[in-house]
Amino acid sequence: MAQPNIRRLRIAVSGLGRMGARHANHFLHRTPKAELVAAFTPEERELAWARENLEPWGVKIYTDYDEMLKHEGLEAVCVATVTTVHAEQTIKAIEAGKHVLCEKPLSTKLDVVQQVLAAAKRQPHLKVMCGFSRRFDASYLSAYALTASGSIGRPTILRSQTCDKYDPSGFFVAYSEFSGGIFVDCNIHDIDLALWYFSADPTSTNKKKELPKVKSVVAVGVTALEPDLAKHGDVDNGVGVVEFYDGQIAYFYSSRMNPPGQHDSTEIIGTKGKLSVNANPTTGLLESHLSTGIHRDIPQTYYDRFEHAFVEEARQFTDAVLDDKAVPIDLESSMEAVRIGVALQESLRSGKKLWFDREGKRVDEDGQARARL
Amino acid sequence: MAQPNIRRLRIAVSGLGRMGARHANHFLHRTPKAELVAAFTPEERELAWARENLEPWGVKIYTDYDEMLKHEGLEAVCVATVTTVHAEQTIKAIEAGKHVLCEKPLSTKLDVVQQVLAAAKRQPHLKVMCGFSRRFDASYLSAYALTASGSIGRPTILRSQTCDKYDPSGFFVAYSEFSGGIFVDCNIHDIDLALWYFSADPTSTNKKKELPKVKSVVAVGVTALEPDLAKHGDVDNGVGVVEFYDGQIAYFYSSRMNPPGQHDSTEIIGTKGKLSVNANPTTGLLESHLSTGIHRDIPQTYYDRFEHAFVEEARQFTDAVLDDKAVPIDLESSMEAVRIGVALQESLRSGKKLWFDREGKRVDEDGQARARL
Amino acid sequence: MAQPNIRRLRIAVSGLGRMGARHANHFLHRTPKAELVAAFTPEERELAWARENLEPWGVKIYTDYDEMLKHEGLEAVCVATVTTVHAEQTIKAIEAGKHVLCEKPLSTKLDVVQQVLAAAKRQPHLKVMCGFSRRFDASYLSAYALTASGSIGRPTILRSQTCDKYDPSGFFVAYSEFSGGIFVDCNIHDIDLALWYFSADPTSTNKKKELPKVKSVVAVGVTALEPDLAKHGDVDNGVGVVEFYDGQIAYFYSSRMNPPGQHDSTEIIGTKGKLSVNANPTTGLLESHLSTGIHRDIPQTYYDRFEHAFVEEARQFTDAVLDDKAVPIDLESSMEAVRIGVALQESLRSGKKLWFDREGKRVDEDGQARARL
Amino acid sequence: MAQPNIRRLRIAVSGLGRMGARHANHFLHRTPKAELVAAFTPEERELAWARENLEPWGVKIYTDYDEMLKHEGLEAVCVATVTTVHAEQTIKAIEAGKHVLCEKPLSTKLDVVQQVLAAAKRQPHLKVMCGFSRRFDASYLSAYALTASGSIGRPTILRSQTCDKYDPSGFFVAYSEFSGGIFVDCNIHDIDLALWYFSADPTSTNKKKELPKVKSVVAVGVTALEPDLAKHGDVDNGVGVVEFYDGQIAYFYSSRMNPPGQHDSTEIIGTKGKLSVNANPTTGLLESHLSTGIHRDIPQTYYDRFEHAFVEEARQFTDAVLDDKAVPIDLESSMEAVRIGVALQESLRSGKKLWFDREGKRVDEDGQARARL
Repeated sequence: MAQPNIRRLRIAVSGLGRMGARHANHFLHRTPKAELVAAFTPEERELAWARENLEPWGVKIYTDYDEMLKHEGLEAVCVATVTTVHAEQTIKAIEAGKHVLCEKPLSTKLDVVQQVLAAAKRQPHLKVMCGFSRRFDASYLSAYALTASGSIGRPTILRSQTCDKYDPSGFFVAYSEFSGGIFVDCNIHDIDLALWYFSADPTSTNKKKELPKVKSVVAVGVTALEPDLAKHGDVDNGVGVVEFYDGQIAYFYSSRMNPPGQHDSTEIIGTKGKLSVNANPTTGLLESHLSTGIHRDIPQTYYDRFEHAFVEEARQFTDAVLDDKAVPIDLESSMEAVRIGVALQESLRSGKKLWFDREGKRVDEDGQARARL
Repeated sequence: MAQPNIRRLRIAVSGLGRMGARHANHFLHRTPKAELVAAFTPEERELAWARENLEPWGVKIYTDYDEMLKHEGLEAVCVATVTTVHAEQTIKAIEAGKHVLCEKPLSTKLDVVQQVLAAAKRQPHLKVMCGFSRRFDASYLSAYALTASGSIGRPTILRSQTCDKYDPSGFFVAYSEFSGGIFVDCNIHDIDLALWYFSADPTSTNKKKELPKVKSVVAVGVTALEPDLAKHGDVDNGVGVVEFYDGQIAYFYSSRMNPPGQHDSTEIIGTKGKLSVNANPTTGLLESHLSTGIHRDIPQTYYDRFEHAFVEEARQFTDAVLDDKAVPIDLESSMEAVRIGVALQESLRSGKKLWFDREGKRVDEDGQARARL
Repeated sequence: MAQPNIRRLRIAVSGLGRMGARHANHFLHRTPKAELVAAFTPEERELAWARENLEPWGVKIYTDYDEMLKHEGLEAVCVATVTTVHAEQTIKAIEAGKHVLCEKPLSTKLDVVQQVLAAAKRQPHLKVMCGFSRRFDASYLSAYALTASGSIGRPTILRSQTCDKYDPSGFFVAYSEFSGGIFVDCNIHDIDLALWYFSADPTSTNKKKELPKVKSVVAVGVTALEPDLAKHGDVDNGVGVVEFYDGQIAYFYSSRMNPPGQHDSTEIIGTKGKLSVNANPTTGLLESHLSTGIHRDIPQTYYDRFEHAFVEEARQFTDAVLDDKAVPIDLESSMEAVRIGVALQESLRSGKKLWFDREGKRVDEDGQARARL
Repeated sequence: MAQPNIRRLRIAVSGLGRMGARHANHFLHRTPKAELVAAFTPEERELAWARENLEPWGVKIYTDYDEMLKHEGLEAVCVATVTTVHAEQTIKAIEAGKHVLCEKPLSTKLDVVQQVLAAAKRQPHLKVMCGFSRRFDASYLSAYALTASGSIGRPTILRSQTCDKYDPSGFFVAYSEFSGGIFVDCNIHDIDLALWYFSADPTSTNKKKELPKVKSVVAVGVTALEPDLAKHGDVDNGVGVVEFYDGQIAYFYSSRMNPPGQHDSTEIIGTKGKLSVNANPTTGLLESHLSTGIHRDIPQTYYDRFEHAFVEEARQFTDAVLDDKAVPIDLESSMEAVRIGVALQESLRSGKKLWFDREGKRVDEDGQARARL
């Protein structure tokens, strides 16, 4: 085939683990306007995969991240390594003048996220986005359009859950040391959705779509199947409630033990209606009518559920860079999601309800009480 | 027709308002083993209804509750007046030696409920039950049987909501002065379900089906449509979380503004499975496929949704009395539901998380912290 | 209780088998305006049931149908015996001056049905109705209201099925000798629905709600599980198509082998929309989320699915008699349903497509061809 | 990017109308192992589209089909022109030594389809497949796997429908002159599914997965919205029944007037269970709870519903060629689908039921009757 006479985004993927390999495939085969030119991994097993699956397509493989950043013509990086190096790699890429799509979360630590933001602000011409995949799912996008258009009045209450199929390997127990805990690892998606839908309030006179301001957070949890999680201050089932100033509430549930598979669902409840995403989960359109009743399956993993959203994320990021327009998720919002997730996890651990003033500063309950006078 | 040669329970209904009239009909026409012999109401409009609809069937109408209690042969009373006199009438009936089925709640005040329990304990041969109708719904009953049989392992998390269709008349605003607030008026059903399902834990070594013990409660809420509710410390949307000792959590949502109608749903989440009641609400089995999409209706009112449960409640109460067996809902549990509802409402008003020790005594956060050491 | 001072319909039930006992209960306990005064059965087992369940309520038991008809004050009879004596008992009751609610079908033989109609016409003051229970189901009633109000334009195509859970006892094999075959026994309900919905055509200029006129019928079938059905010219799975004059088509499926239970569903397809009844069957509002997927049950029997419709049928029949108004289902329509069912069964047996002229007379294909010129 | 060092199938697309443009995109951007090297269209508007959307990617555009076949290195052709030239182009491509994926149907005329098969047989090393997209849909594939594995016993009855959203432009009226009629244009998909699922019979001793043999077909229809269809012997709503030898029946419905959108559904009914595909249609996982009830959308077009199936079809065809394995749909089956569709359309027009012997020859009813003796 002749070389396409098309302006395509030259992108690299960093990290070729489970999600990294998928991102590589999405940019290589499912994002027509992107060209996967390089990939980085230091892992031998991932390298072997890359040699078989990427190299033949002309993708250059690197075992040194800094070297990869110097790849000729490289314009953008998709950071999909382990969470602990997300921030460092993102900052390095920004400093090398690359656009960045980083897997969520930027970091499980708020101060580290702030460093990423600071780096991004120093290079305002670069597109830097944290990939909250759920925002690119067709059903969530439709719900956003309906919310923004006023179909449900003022979005007031949001309920959202992230429930994974139980993984008996114990992976998530060990991982909880680095994951930031269930609210930062799982419910961060739900928190992000709350920020997204609440800031779409069509009744607001504020046209800037400002983020809602957290007033209080509180969380509880249990270790129903994996008591060892307690070592890291974590649980396998968590319930959290976030109260925002100006009359909006989001409440969340996350679980590591949903038997049939992945069940993530969300309700956006407004003064005139409710939008319900995935109340009635299913893999597809098939039901079996057997002597034991009617049966259906649900997606087994997060990727099974959101594969098309990940592809759409890659496309929208690519378009934003090529067309020099705002990325669909701004970094402030992603930082706020981490801040809320970290606060929920702290509330879980301490048993305390945490309070914030309108500027986002922690206040004690009495300060809060005074503020209300 | 010859007089039936059947032992039937001679019952009276007190209060013939919206629910009272329905109870009267259930005992008169839909509970074969009961005989509605009397009814009481002081309200002129209700009296007119009774003269037309009850008297011709041989039901004696009273305008004085105490007189009604003296009705010859009367064995039981269904108390369905306004909440504020539930307790007083129940106690009087008990003292007059009558079995009592009382509409929920016994009272919105915990000390008053305790008086009812004390009265009932003094007459242990009488059946006294608070009517939590949802427990008699076929789907909830099936969920209970599956929970008790171990299908979902240990019931660990319960999510439950009571969402009413918005009533623009403002009735519930005025009513909030007496209702005890949204957690006592609406979520009391959900609280009762939590007590019911959690005490069915098949993995418990405790065979007494003890009630789970509350450790903490916390609640928040907003007045999205009816700011006047704030006068009574109430809201039109509330979210509450109840943490129990020994690793169980229930979380609740209630709303007065659900546009399509009544949507009460519950999830009982266990270590091996989840039972979902009414995730996918519908009035019946009809869907309309029109140019605007696919449409279905949901029940408009609580009674539309639970009519058959109310009838079943009447039948099971009648059977319990006639067969001298335990009523399906014990009073201790109903009292506990009020205690939790009142605590949630207090948490909503104060903004504070409330703590309890295993004996049910309020402790402060530090006491709690010490208790955890 | 004092004897009610209420005008109630004094009715008897003939036959106390499975459905007869249910009808007896419906009139005794669930139809306030009816008074079950008598019941007839010659069967010893049914008699024993009646002595235990009916006699104590003051119901007089007869073992002679003619004697029962003479019961003092008797006004109406519900005929629920085996199909083979439906017609004879109905005619006798009419001739004795009683109103009659007869279980479907009046007979499996068209000439016998005609005799019933002739008898009824001789006593035009009596209410005589064949009980097609599905017409009294809430979802079907809503669909009717929507059809008649024009929501779906002109009802044009109707798809309807009656699928029973497989009964390994072989009962229905033996019964096929008398049942008239699967189209007369099962699909007769679906045929009745076609007549009902098509005659509700809101676009018709004919205000008499005339029945649609059959143009052709054709049917095929298989014996998938019970080859012995072939002895009686019957099958365990049948598909039939009925073409009406003026552009309406109904097509049917019936089965004796639906593993999860009873699945009867119907689509009324109009020029502007479709009404779908029970496309998504379920027993209630409960779903189980287990490691094997999501599961729900469906009703096990026809009665499980249509219990409330049977009760409503009893009430509407009672009201029609007491208020002297037309019964909800006219006999002409019920006769037409038998005619179509019998024709489908004949088509199944002969393999031939059968043709009718607008007056309902059989014509051969060539006559049909000529008629179309 | 370096030229991939990967063996990819060099394919061309013929016809760039609605479906052709989609096929071009699928091979260009969504089938990694294929390389779209050429495209043909004589239409000015389609050429303009191709210059903008294909040429920049290195795809050579032809306005002469024969020239395109000579494109250097071309290995395969996807024929997606108007139905009337499907066969001719397919034959030409075969004769030029190209593998062919042809849009359904090969032709609306059986003798023409036979010519295609003859051409294909002369070049047995070439892969020639007619694209019945529905076979590549994930839900239909799961249903196939369950059928073949014995989950539902012997597949005995199949119900399937193809219902399009009403297109008020009248396009399909004009198109009916060439479409072969509703059974050949729409229900051909459903017929193909019947052949597929029935030949998967796991109880069959025949391991060759032979196609089921048609015994009789019969069809009726109406012109509810578009009377002009009658000019071409066509209808806008059709019902057809196909009886196979050895106890299998398929029945079909097709409509051009489904108001909410595209609703294609299928039930495969076996002796031990039923598989239901799309009984409960929906676009995604979103439902709106508004004051008018609960609402959801369904796909608007066939492509909206089956987009991913088309992509999967392109991938599987590509893999079959590259790996030199059998294509997933064999031509005999596709020819049989046309034969049945044409017979149904003839039955619709003549009003007659048509009979076939086991060899597929038409017999008259009496011949049939004799055959049964």
